[in-house]
Amino acid sequence: MPRWEPDARERLVAAALQLFSEQGYDNTAVAEIAERAGLTRSTFFRHFPDKREVLAAGQEILSRLFADGISAASADATPLTAVAAGLERAAGAMTLFNRELGPRLHAVIATSTELQERDALKQVGLAAAMTGALRARGVPDLVATLAAELGVLAFKEAYAAWVAADNQQELGDLARTALDRLRTTVTELG
Amino acid sequence: MPRWEPDARERLVAAALQLFSEQGYDNTAVAEIAERAGLTRSTFFRHFPDKREVLAAGQEILSRLFADGISAASADATPLTAVAAGLERAAGAMTLFNRELGPRLHAVIATSTELQERDALKQVGLAAAMTGALRARGVPDLVATLAAELGVLAFKEAYAAWVAADNQQELGDLARTALDRLRTTVTELG
Repeated sequence: MPRWEPDARERLVAAALQLFSEQGYDNTAVAEIAERAGLTRSTFFRHFPDKREVLAAGQEILSRLFADGISAASADATPLTAVAAGLERAAGAMTLFNRELGPRLHAVIATSTELQERDALKQVGLAAAMTGALRARGVPDLVATLAAELGVLAFKEAYAAWVAADNQQELGDLARTALDRLRTTVTELG
Repeated sequence: MPRWEPDARERLVAAALQLFSEQGYDNTAVAEIAERAGLTRSTFFRHFPDKREVLAAGQEILSRLFADGISAASADATPLTAVAAGLERAAGAMTLFNRELGPRLHAVIATSTELQERDALKQVGLAAAMTGALRARGVPDLVATLAAELGVLAFKEAYAAWVAADNQQELGDLARTALDRLRTTVTELG
């Protein structure tokens, strides 16, 4: 009889993080993650194809939020203003769970080449999602690609600042500031 | 008795590409690649840790060329001018082998998620190499990151144009044009 598992995904992510921290990524099996989360192995596989994907959880949701925000920006918004709307949409959906997870997630990723690779791919995937949403607005390919790169960089910076122990600012504000800073920075490229 | 293998690396890349095209990436074993190249399995492993890495061959060399070109740029060069010098250095080292490989490489990469992932990581690695070389020149982190992203995009575009069947232009010229176009494009971001 399948148990009610409204938060199975979050519990699996938290359990995986704990185990990866305690005993290392390579030494942790899917069965252990499921057990620690109080779930079955088959529940794990309903949520993730393998243990690597646990730490890239959120990529699809984040991609959709970015894209939705970009699509919903007003028709006359510049590419970067549309990107800002995407960041805002994503920032608004982040919870305390995401904030508490951040530092532990980074610590675990730093221990494994495989996880660093997956993390790099996550960035690429997020940029692709933004690029697609911008193209759908009629933004030329190259401009869309560049605006998306700036968007991903801004979100990454803002997220790192948000999860810092002493931070008091909202993620949305941090993202806006980071994007503005990047916008200024392009003038220094020469 | 080890055989003389001056071009073992290139032969392994060419053999892997052939086999991946003929029978698919998943269905090809390291032993087959070595055999097709007329080499042993242990020679393969002296050059590559696994079959995935064969198609990312050149990342280290390309990284070093980018970084060397950036380091050698004149002290007063702007970040993007330094990046242009890096692209030029890399372009100058590309051979007919690279040019002939390009289209087949892209076709094979398109058939496998694993290879697409490796290719995305290659881009990330190249950007990191350029970022590092720019930082070593005293370029601020964020400016270095952006300039490097533009550099990788420009090289990717230029390479795609270079290996096109009807292309008559030099890779170095194509890279310069692509970087100039990106430089202009950043002003259109809004």
